[in-house]
Amino acid sequence: MSESIRVAVVGATGYGGAEIVRLLASHPCARVTTVTSSRLAGRPLREECPWLGTDLVLSSLAPERLDADFVVLAQENGFAMERAAEILPHARIIDLSADFRLRDLDVYAQYYKRTHLNPTLPSAPVYGLPELVGHEEIASARLLANPGCYPTATLLGLAPLERNGLIAGTPVVDAKSGVSGAGRSKKDTEYLFSELAGGFKAYGVTGHRHTPEIEQELGRAVRFTPHLVPMTRGIHSTSHVPLRAGVGRDELRQLFRDFYAGAKFVTVVDAPPSTKQVQGSNRCDLYVDFDERTGMAVVISVIDNLVKGMAGQAIQNLNLMAGLPEETGLPTSAVWP
Amino acid sequence: MSESIRVAVVGATGYGGAEIVRLLASHPCARVTTVTSSRLAGRPLREECPWLGTDLVLSSLAPERLDADFVVLAQENGFAMERAAEILPHARIIDLSADFRLRDLDVYAQYYKRTHLNPTLPSAPVYGLPELVGHEEIASARLLANPGCYPTATLLGLAPLERNGLIAGTPVVDAKSGVSGAGRSKKDTEYLFSELAGGFKAYGVTGHRHTPEIEQELGRAVRFTPHLVPMTRGIHSTSHVPLRAGVGRDELRQLFRDFYAGAKFVTVVDAPPSTKQVQGSNRCDLYVDFDERTGMAVVISVIDNLVKGMAGQAIQNLNLMAGLPEETGLPTSAVWP
Amino acid sequence: MSESIRVAVVGATGYGGAEIVRLLASHPCARVTTVTSSRLAGRPLREECPWLGTDLVLSSLAPERLDADFVVLAQENGFAMERAAEILPHARIIDLSADFRLRDLDVYAQYYKRTHLNPTLPSAPVYGLPELVGHEEIASARLLANPGCYPTATLLGLAPLERNGLIAGTPVVDAKSGVSGAGRSKKDTEYLFSELAGGFKAYGVTGHRHTPEIEQELGRAVRFTPHLVPMTRGIHSTSHVPLRAGVGRDELRQLFRDFYAGAKFVTVVDAPPSTKQVQGSNRCDLYVDFDERTGMAVVISVIDNLVKGMAGQAIQNLNLMAGLPEETGLPTSAVWP
Amino acid sequence: MSESIRVAVVGATGYGGAEIVRLLASHPCARVTTVTSSRLAGRPLREECPWLGTDLVLSSLAPERLDADFVVLAQENGFAMERAAEILPHARIIDLSADFRLRDLDVYAQYYKRTHLNPTLPSAPVYGLPELVGHEEIASARLLANPGCYPTATLLGLAPLERNGLIAGTPVVDAKSGVSGAGRSKKDTEYLFSELAGGFKAYGVTGHRHTPEIEQELGRAVRFTPHLVPMTRGIHSTSHVPLRAGVGRDELRQLFRDFYAGAKFVTVVDAPPSTKQVQGSNRCDLYVDFDERTGMAVVISVIDNLVKGMAGQAIQNLNLMAGLPEETGLPTSAVWP
Repeated sequence: MSESIRVAVVGATGYGGAEIVRLLASHPCARVTTVTSSRLAGRPLREECPWLGTDLVLSSLAPERLDADFVVLAQENGFAMERAAEILPHARIIDLSADFRLRDLDVYAQYYKRTHLNPTLPSAPVYGLPELVGHEEIASARLLANPGCYPTATLLGLAPLERNGLIAGTPVVDAKSGVSGAGRSKKDTEYLFSELAGGFKAYGVTGHRHTPEIEQELGRAVRFTPHLVPMTRGIHSTSHVPLRAGVGRDELRQLFRDFYAGAKFVTVVDAPPSTKQVQGSNRCDLYVDFDERTGMAVVISVIDNLVKGMAGQAIQNLNLMAGLPEETGLPTSAVWP
Repeated sequence: MSESIRVAVVGATGYGGAEIVRLLASHPCARVTTVTSSRLAGRPLREECPWLGTDLVLSSLAPERLDADFVVLAQENGFAMERAAEILPHARIIDLSADFRLRDLDVYAQYYKRTHLNPTLPSAPVYGLPELVGHEEIASARLLANPGCYPTATLLGLAPLERNGLIAGTPVVDAKSGVSGAGRSKKDTEYLFSELAGGFKAYGVTGHRHTPEIEQELGRAVRFTPHLVPMTRGIHSTSHVPLRAGVGRDELRQLFRDFYAGAKFVTVVDAPPSTKQVQGSNRCDLYVDFDERTGMAVVISVIDNLVKGMAGQAIQNLNLMAGLPEETGLPTSAVWP
Repeated sequence: MSESIRVAVVGATGYGGAEIVRLLASHPCARVTTVTSSRLAGRPLREECPWLGTDLVLSSLAPERLDADFVVLAQENGFAMERAAEILPHARIIDLSADFRLRDLDVYAQYYKRTHLNPTLPSAPVYGLPELVGHEEIASARLLANPGCYPTATLLGLAPLERNGLIAGTPVVDAKSGVSGAGRSKKDTEYLFSELAGGFKAYGVTGHRHTPEIEQELGRAVRFTPHLVPMTRGIHSTSHVPLRAGVGRDELRQLFRDFYAGAKFVTVVDAPPSTKQVQGSNRCDLYVDFDERTGMAVVISVIDNLVKGMAGQAIQNLNLMAGLPEETGLPTSAVWP
Repeated sequence: MSESIRVAVVGATGYGGAEIVRLLASHPCARVTTVTSSRLAGRPLREECPWLGTDLVLSSLAPERLDADFVVLAQENGFAMERAAEILPHARIIDLSADFRLRDLDVYAQYYKRTHLNPTLPSAPVYGLPELVGHEEIASARLLANPGCYPTATLLGLAPLERNGLIAGTPVVDAKSGVSGAGRSKKDTEYLFSELAGGFKAYGVTGHRHTPEIEQELGRAVRFTPHLVPMTRGIHSTSHVPLRAGVGRDELRQLFRDFYAGAKFVTVVDAPPSTKQVQGSNRCDLYVDFDERTGMAVVISVIDNLVKGMAGQAIQNLNLMAGLPEETGLPTSAVWP
């Protein structure tokens, strides 16, 4: 089985694509065979991504000549819905974009400011959050929609409460992200080092695109605001949740531990976690507390937005789709400090 | 009147005390005459604070020999309640600690884990948040309790809603602070550069000491959780507030503008502000939005925790106590980038 | 004389121009009357620079209608040599660019990759480094070339050695800068927060433009390499200088103290200074050590690149040109932490 | 051979020890069997190091009961020379401290301010810099002295010049380090986040302990000054080296490429490398340039101080000592951004 799974990364020079290449470098059963870039075909990947110890050379995407069992699409929104139908006859797809996450295409159009092409596909896309979605469903997917980073962190934090019928009102989800979430190609003044270092701010205060994704999977409306932290990696989601009466702190912690008893990548921790303690790993660390004075639970979840929030989760899904244990080749220890 | 007001800074080598020294260096009517340190008496202040362009020499606190009209106490909690009675016959006091902020001393004992000494004072302490407290009251104070940093930012954001009777449920206050809020003497592993850089985390998740201070001044319970941002200065308070029906976004913004029409240091801004845009200044920038889907207002307030959240506000109060315009000698432009 | 000096800032939305506006806000005798921007004329300055507490509105540059005694040109290289002749009949110029710093125009052409226009001017430009150039010369300048940031830090460190005839070989100048030195308009991937945070690198390893400026003013060749530090402000210049035999550490420190005895902004310090201890101030802190084993002095100088390395030094020059004490309105205490 | 090598980590809660645990988690042939801590014996390692996905429990060091083939000593200087003789009968030692790096014990005493115990050992310690020391020598070592971080980066940069007889004068080594180099237990004010973030400074200007280590292995005196960069990981060593006449830039680059032709972890790159492009990996990226004007080469080397500068290099040595390919289980791709 050694390295028998072939993976193509479409858009390998962005943060998500390059992270797939980095993580698969130590995967025992999969290897990257193709890396594409529309702009830099013919150049060594390392020229653009000097941090990767690789000799791969960038090529143009040619679906019919792909030397791959799996294609990871690491592209802007809009790419996957345009090209998926063309690629699917040749390989299974894991799409890192939002194109196939939302079932209601009107909601997609409203939040992503474009009409969804709604292409004809051999089967429906599967939303790939392995801790909350059936592994069999993921295993049989031909087109997997990899979740967004904020939804991953937030849903892992809220699901134990929602699925146990404990939520008594609109959760307030106050989320924070490292800057790499903005990607590598946003060259606005706003993302310059000098503009962001030493400052903290909110954005998308009432209309962020991940709102409907969270609501679809949670089955409930949420009040959601994201913020930008002067750090490169990490998501910290703080949810303040009105609870039905009669649940205390210790009960909550036990409930979370039980809920994630079998999960390889979710840890319920005893102290408020730093995003840094999951940096570079595929872990999600969860902390839950209860504020008696207001009757609200506070749920904190931290992930690395580029690993569990993107490339790591994609590989976790790929493992399941390939019939491997989900944790194969994925780090559970973080890079600290 | 040039430089006629004499100020003593007790505890001048911490971040708060040193910031008083820095800001008063460009004050046209006040000057620092005395700087004290229990540990370093006899040494030049600059030896311990090389960033200050000053020749002042540290001394021990000797209340009866103070060459000062005002004493700023920049000490740990507990110091002011022990020494205030002794100092007040000689000079008016501005206390940066929490000792005289809370009217209910049982609440003080509960949150600060110590019995309040409740010393006999010539007059009651005044809570010095000049935008929300009467200027005459501040002007006549002999002992002024300078507000905490989180309460300053949060109260400036919530007061326009509360005082207009618009709040319909428990506000969720999700606040974030730069690390300087922890002070200069906390030498725990936790505050080392390598432990904090590149990470974000919550602390005091359900029991932070600033909770009762916010509630006392707001007159309402709040759900409050603070977080630590990998930056040195700045407070960002995000309040999610259930509103009574019938108020929209534009109305809210106008209401905030009207509320702070005369305020010298509060600006209602049109885009989510970064903490950095108030760094080093005494400004508070406010942003308000309305989420129709959930019926909640989102109020964002940013301040520099060491200026409007501490030393700048102390000088604003000192100005009022000395009969000067409140803005005298205080910067409204920030140090950016 | 209060606020009698009128200043126009050409290019007010960049870091240098905006810093002029910030610093002059607390200047007792000068005020900004005009701020220009070719791109944003008609808009409030604060819209583009929300950190400035100002109501100034941006306009287009119109030399003949300037309401100003002094014009500060805060523009890209090339602008000043094109427009200076047109402006000089109306106001004295302080130019922040490199256009009038180098006397040898062939060297300018070689390093700046453009032919120097060499315009006809009423008098020769003066290089404005007040600690090393005669104050009378600066006072009488009509066109002042404000020094570069690396040259300011480096020359202040090397001048005491050079002018005392102590240098015995090529100095190695290993310099480091905060990212704001790259300006606000460089929107390359390279300057994104995510690309720079947490990393350190060299640039312009053997051919940086500030090399000939240092050499011209020092009168000697130097080996010069600059580096980019993941921080926004600050220059740290480390010079390793082969010395003539017979000078020891204490002698060197005394020599530096004597050399800068009258200087308002240069401090010789006893411990290696951090760039942070001069942040936001117009100070240059100098440290000198001697390595007996190799016979080299090590000179360390730190400045804030946007203050003593740019806008603060410009105002220091403006003060001298206006007949004021050079330190008028300039901070000597830094913003820490 | 799967996981047959047993490793004990003495001092597992510091940055170096914990990094050994992290890296060995993905090593195919070695596993950590024992983790010790004098202060926390009996506690789960994860309690102190929440970033490690491990169930190991800390114990006290008991040499005779070690379940290990190799012991990695990740302790302060002084520990190894005291305990090595006791441990060596039971396991081979890789020592991360400076205790066995210097052959001249008087030099050790001078720089480390303590007399060297000079214990009787079964064989001489081997200095383990695999790119510059014979692999057979390392393979047969019983006690391996793992090099310091600055020496590793600097020596890899200077060796190609020295061994080709090209150096014509004293090299100036201007080095920069991330803060993690100071370790996890230095709780001085100096290392607090608020004191270091946003600033850059030198330390140990003329007497840093790594100077004699560099000189011993290079065989030549150097002028060495280290600096502290506001980032957690990374060493950037910039060496300015007077060269014998007649060598140009292209020749130098080819010479470096040839020198490291067989090296698995050294890459000669074409642009000045950022420390960040090796973060978390065991790579050393080298850049060389030539300054014709001064006749000096500029050599830049970057490593991750905790990987190639410490734990990664220790595992590279362990691989050689265990008869494995040196690159076994070590990452060559970095964590970016």
